[in-house]
Amino acid sequence: MLATMMDRPLLVSSLLWRAENVFPERVNVSCDGDVDVDFTYRELGVQARRLGGALQGLGVESGTRVASLAWNTLRHLAAYYAVPGIGAILHTVNHRMSPEHIAYTMQKAQDEVLLVDADLLPLVAPVMSEIPLLRHVVILGDGAVRDEGSGLPESVTVWWFDELVRDSEPLAEFPEFDETTAAAICFTSGTTGLPKGVVYSHRSIVLHAMAIIAAGGVAVDGSKAYLLGTQMSHVLSWGVPYAGPLQGARLILPGPHPSPDEYLRIVTEQAPDVFVGAPAVVALMRERYEADPEQYDLSSLTTLWLGGQVPPAGLVKWWAERGAVSVNGWGMTETSPMGTFSHTADSQGRPLPLFEIRIVDDEGQAVSWDGEASGELQVRSPWVTGTYLHDERSAESFDDGWLKSGDVATVDPGGQVQIRDRAKDLIKSGGEWISSVDLENALTLHPAVLDAAVIAVPHETWQERPVAWVQVSSEVGDEELRDYLAARVPKFWTPDAFVRVEAIPRTSVGKLDKVRMRREWRDA
Amino acid sequence: MLATMMDRPLLVSSLLWRAENVFPERVNVSCDGDVDVDFTYRELGVQARRLGGALQGLGVESGTRVASLAWNTLRHLAAYYAVPGIGAILHTVNHRMSPEHIAYTMQKAQDEVLLVDADLLPLVAPVMSEIPLLRHVVILGDGAVRDEGSGLPESVTVWWFDELVRDSEPLAEFPEFDETTAAAICFTSGTTGLPKGVVYSHRSIVLHAMAIIAAGGVAVDGSKAYLLGTQMSHVLSWGVPYAGPLQGARLILPGPHPSPDEYLRIVTEQAPDVFVGAPAVVALMRERYEADPEQYDLSSLTTLWLGGQVPPAGLVKWWAERGAVSVNGWGMTETSPMGTFSHTADSQGRPLPLFEIRIVDDEGQAVSWDGEASGELQVRSPWVTGTYLHDERSAESFDDGWLKSGDVATVDPGGQVQIRDRAKDLIKSGGEWISSVDLENALTLHPAVLDAAVIAVPHETWQERPVAWVQVSSEVGDEELRDYLAARVPKFWTPDAFVRVEAIPRTSVGKLDKVRMRREWRDA
Repeated sequence: MLATMMDRPLLVSSLLWRAENVFPERVNVSCDGDVDVDFTYRELGVQARRLGGALQGLGVESGTRVASLAWNTLRHLAAYYAVPGIGAILHTVNHRMSPEHIAYTMQKAQDEVLLVDADLLPLVAPVMSEIPLLRHVVILGDGAVRDEGSGLPESVTVWWFDELVRDSEPLAEFPEFDETTAAAICFTSGTTGLPKGVVYSHRSIVLHAMAIIAAGGVAVDGSKAYLLGTQMSHVLSWGVPYAGPLQGARLILPGPHPSPDEYLRIVTEQAPDVFVGAPAVVALMRERYEADPEQYDLSSLTTLWLGGQVPPAGLVKWWAERGAVSVNGWGMTETSPMGTFSHTADSQGRPLPLFEIRIVDDEGQAVSWDGEASGELQVRSPWVTGTYLHDERSAESFDDGWLKSGDVATVDPGGQVQIRDRAKDLIKSGGEWISSVDLENALTLHPAVLDAAVIAVPHETWQERPVAWVQVSSEVGDEELRDYLAARVPKFWTPDAFVRVEAIPRTSVGKLDKVRMRREWRDA
Repeated sequence: MLATMMDRPLLVSSLLWRAENVFPERVNVSCDGDVDVDFTYRELGVQARRLGGALQGLGVESGTRVASLAWNTLRHLAAYYAVPGIGAILHTVNHRMSPEHIAYTMQKAQDEVLLVDADLLPLVAPVMSEIPLLRHVVILGDGAVRDEGSGLPESVTVWWFDELVRDSEPLAEFPEFDETTAAAICFTSGTTGLPKGVVYSHRSIVLHAMAIIAAGGVAVDGSKAYLLGTQMSHVLSWGVPYAGPLQGARLILPGPHPSPDEYLRIVTEQAPDVFVGAPAVVALMRERYEADPEQYDLSSLTTLWLGGQVPPAGLVKWWAERGAVSVNGWGMTETSPMGTFSHTADSQGRPLPLFEIRIVDDEGQAVSWDGEASGELQVRSPWVTGTYLHDERSAESFDDGWLKSGDVATVDPGGQVQIRDRAKDLIKSGGEWISSVDLENALTLHPAVLDAAVIAVPHETWQERPVAWVQVSSEVGDEELRDYLAARVPKFWTPDAFVRVEAIPRTSVGKLDKVRMRREWRDA
């Protein structure tokens, strides 16, 4: 017997349907540098359907790869719907990558069209001739400054976004097709080796959106305003550009190269409930705020939705004292990215609905969820990648259908995940394990420590020993740091040395760059 | 380019995975008549996997139809997971149907196994020989009373649920298969003609669960306790037996033939946050409570989640004064059932995520969402049926891929649906439309009116005129009712007559039985 249910595909356009029809008057804002531009979801819908028609006019078809190298703006948001909406594939290029990696990922994705913010054009212009299929460059502006497009290879035609969209008839509706159709591409930003491509489907994007609107979890909700401090150029900005409109939430897009001061201005003027972003960003906002507390108003913020790294405990405390609770999740580019979610910052929380996890020990056995037994976190879900785009490294990344995260974790009997370390960041000293994450957390609790990172360095007697890198706000001696840690972690965890730095080295997506730290330590 | 995402099916067993693993210790309760039986989600999981193994032992395979004729209990809940879990199909037989309709639906579904509560056995025993494929009858009890199974046809083998489950090894895990596999069957309970079969898929059940856990809507949530006053024998009890465990919510199952007094006892002792059920049930609870207010404690209830009919305004007000807000949705057996949801009782609210609606006028044109233009509500979604099970009436029920609901509605610019009437219940008087729903709502606002229904009766001059049926708590004259209405609805809406009844006729699922009222009026 066959089920009698309608065969309705899960498409990105079905998310936009609800925004346009159910929440047409919800007012959002795109902070485009000089001016804050309000827009409703009705306007977003029109813009997306105009852009869809314009792209079809440029020859974009089902399966065509359209790259974006762009900030968090209304124009970029329109592309989030228009490109997958017409069956094409949006490759969000991470603007924090090197030009070499940008060229590599655009070759690998086979991009034919590039949507690019004028100020990011210099990142890609020098390598544009190395992207063989690229035919059209659409500058995300109104064409007021025509020479922005000069100096590009003759193989590409230059267009201005606003002109293209203005001259285009909006599509009456987006086409329907199979939900497993590719919708977007994002590349990982591994600290070693070349980036790896992950291709999201319409199905994975829609199911991820459904998971992050679920009550009791992230719960993206129409009653709230979200300041999108995580870049739309990476991991689809954690899915908020899809879940927000679906729910009629107010989106506040911070625009080009947002500085900590600009974020503080936007918080003050646009009064978001939730800041979405990396701990490193809210750490900088704290610094700037403290330099001039009279200038800004943080009172609207109730929630900091943090990810990408474990937020330092001292930072969490500072914001909590100002009314903003830090919530926290676990995820990767490979997991769209949300996999688990916690209402506190000291745990990665529970798996979202339809997201399955297991902890596997060194012998390949699943361990019990007792809060003690640790092993590699492995995950599977309709929004987890099952391979990498034409990449030989795929073979080593999966175990019997589960993605190997590379993170070491425990799970307690209530399903709460605790990341203990990256597998490769664990420190083995005298036969015992030392958690660099726990050491980093303990260090950042010290009032003078703004940021910290701990790496393992080789040691003759103990095999490995921890060394701490610290960014401090005021003078503090090694002895004081040692005493401070002694009250919080086992004695043998005390780092052998403290390296003072102006800023902790981080990767293009804000993760600790331990590869670089190890190299610098070795070279020094 | 193909997406790289894992091909993970949406299966009922993936809902149970989260309940068992993430919320193993959540304590639920099954009020089984004499005794309230606590159970955790870990125990539910074991029970479901034991039952799955036991059914396989009886020869149940992928696609086998397993009927249930049962109350809201732990045993029935285990079947909700075990039967679809092993790839078989659960046909929930509506115990409010006549024996003839029960036989008809079990023939149509081709049921081979029947899970039945002992006290419901007499409903099906007389017609059991008319169900040709039926081989096994499993009585939902411990076998203490052996003669419960006597007198059944020799063609069936009788088993006792608790013995079967106790003697069965739990399945290590449920198998995986395609998500479009049929999972459950429910028949509509139309007031005219034979019931029509709807076959839900694993996909539709999972997506419906994801929609009713979304923040801002129904938002079934792990922090709350739900008293399930809507029967598991119809429309999968609005999906709560799936969404609740998925979220770790506490389920309170009221057990066999719950009376209004039993509901009040359970509310008092088990302290649910939410009552889920029909307005008719909370109307009876109100009556019983008022007869003896000292005996019961309603203070835990914050929400009445009502459906099946528009809740009378007077009833909503009474409960609100006692701290319980009535929320409201729109749906049908054909829509799994939830389609829209409102935080108030005076509107059907907004479409859930992934649920699309349109309003179509008599000329077949979609009308605008201005709160004024009305027409038939048509819907489509992955959890809306696209046909009926081997039924010739399918042809007339759909319009270009949309389900024709038969309800007349308006939608306001904020996406709020307002059901104006059943298409066939609208009253056309002197060329103008009269809404029976609005008249019923206005009548139930009168303090003495407990329940009301309005039908159209033929009229020589005006074509049709309204006649009201009222159930009153104290003496009230026609003149007073007319005056009361005059202040609330247009003068020409005033019913030509008021019929006093002990109870308004309702169908097996609690909807107004206007067919019967029209017949009785004609006969009188």
